[in-house]
Amino acid sequence: MKKPIAIQGIKGSFHHEVAQQYFGTKTEVVECMSFDSAVDRLMEGDTDNIVMALENSIAGSIIPNYALIDNHNLSIVGEYYLDIQHNLMALKGQTIASILEVHSHPMALLQCKVFLKNYPHIRLVEAKDTADVAKQIVEQNLSGIAAIASKNAAKMYNLEVLAESIQTIKHNETRFAIVKRENSKVERKAINKASLKFELDHKRGSLATILNVMSDCKLNLTKIQSLPKIDTPWKYAFFVDITFEDYEDYKKANAIMQLMAENFKVLGEYKNARL
Amino acid sequence: MKKPIAIQGIKGSFHHEVAQQYFGTKTEVVECMSFDSAVDRLMEGDTDNIVMALENSIAGSIIPNYALIDNHNLSIVGEYYLDIQHNLMALKGQTIASILEVHSHPMALLQCKVFLKNYPHIRLVEAKDTADVAKQIVEQNLSGIAAIASKNAAKMYNLEVLAESIQTIKHNETRFAIVKRENSKVERKAINKASLKFELDHKRGSLATILNVMSDCKLNLTKIQSLPKIDTPWKYAFFVDITFEDYEDYKKANAIMQLMAENFKVLGEYKNARL
Repeated sequence: MKKPIAIQGIKGSFHHEVAQQYFGTKTEVVECMSFDSAVDRLMEGDTDNIVMALENSIAGSIIPNYALIDNHNLSIVGEYYLDIQHNLMALKGQTIASILEVHSHPMALLQCKVFLKNYPHIRLVEAKDTADVAKQIVEQNLSGIAAIASKNAAKMYNLEVLAESIQTIKHNETRFAIVKRENSKVERKAINKASLKFELDHKRGSLATILNVMSDCKLNLTKIQSLPKIDTPWKYAFFVDITFEDYEDYKKANAIMQLMAENFKVLGEYKNARL
Repeated sequence: MKKPIAIQGIKGSFHHEVAQQYFGTKTEVVECMSFDSAVDRLMEGDTDNIVMALENSIAGSIIPNYALIDNHNLSIVGEYYLDIQHNLMALKGQTIASILEVHSHPMALLQCKVFLKNYPHIRLVEAKDTADVAKQIVEQNLSGIAAIASKNAAKMYNLEVLAESIQTIKHNETRFAIVKRENSKVERKAINKASLKFELDHKRGSLATILNVMSDCKLNLTKIQSLPKIDTPWKYAFFVDITFEDYEDYKKANAIMQLMAENFKVLGEYKNARL
């Protein structure tokens, strides 16, 4: 039997939405209160798949999640892009004028700051999880209180959307990874993207040399992120995503990069979710 | 007369510590409740300098702060590295056994999770600002409540440190920038580091070509971060830091890069804080 998918947050969260889009709407999920605990469930075998946000177009990479994948030797086996839209919602029959408080995650409140300034009568209250507020409003029948969450959450908890897409930056895309304990079972010919990690000395041109290898082998770089190695001055770790047309090109580049970079590691090989 | 320095957070915060280290211990500061409001104070002329965290060795770059600098055309004129150490502190005479609650920023609570697990009798409560909790404990004479904050905060608010350096990852270095409205007045010969931003098409080898120019001109790369351009598929912005020995080498590379990359921009030229 297929084990449920571990998500960060509760049902109605953005992670839940990705699980449904990727694995199907009837997918069972394990609600985890943090990314760490989702990884614990994976390591203990309660689940075989985690949905994990990796980066978004406003805040950049979520480095602690890269560290979780790296430190536990997990594998990225797929990716999914979701456009995050925040919506104001409350019990049915409520209007914006009747809302006294809006509860949401500090990041969501921040992203909706410009919209909320139009309603100075509404007090902003920080909460742990966007979807959880929606759930509490229904369970405790809280009138006068609004949540900021996804349309999915509104539907799930039967709340009324008072205002749609209220975030300041309208396009807020987040990239999620599907993460497993072991390597991808994806067919080779379906693989056209990989996530790599390697280390280099702070020597002039060392990264340029690696990127030249990639370019010579017809790999396209879609993401690069350097991170100074803790406790090792002048040594840097690089997290890199590449796309390619031919798996053999990628294999050839890999063989060369393994010789040129230190601690070269494939974090995952999978199908590019962008066309 | 010198205007006070804008910091994010209150006196006793890590930003305050950097302001004191960089500008001198007697430096006056303007306490700002967010990075956005610190930039507002700068734009309105209430201050001529902001201390702003840019990246740390655990969480990576703070992309929204790069966006603030970029969008307001501000200049980085200096940098400072601070090793962030979290300490448990409470009113004098208290012991860990007498502590019932610890209040701190969610990130600080997370970073000290392993230490706090040893004291299951202590309830964790999320707060907005690490130093502000220390201040409240003194002002309201709160016994049974501890803060997680810097030694600086303990000293400033006369609290007793119950446990030192309680964060799980002992080395947690954060890089701060000194940010002004206008360009650096630093003497050319003192400049050996620069922060750049440029855009490239998703074309094979485009980044490698730029890095080859840097390498040919004897520039060393100390940081690189790609960010997909919102609403422009296949176009990427890169934030890059470089160090060099000779300003003329850097000027030459700049002239070439301006021709090769789109929207090339110098975010700052300053003195490398690392030796």
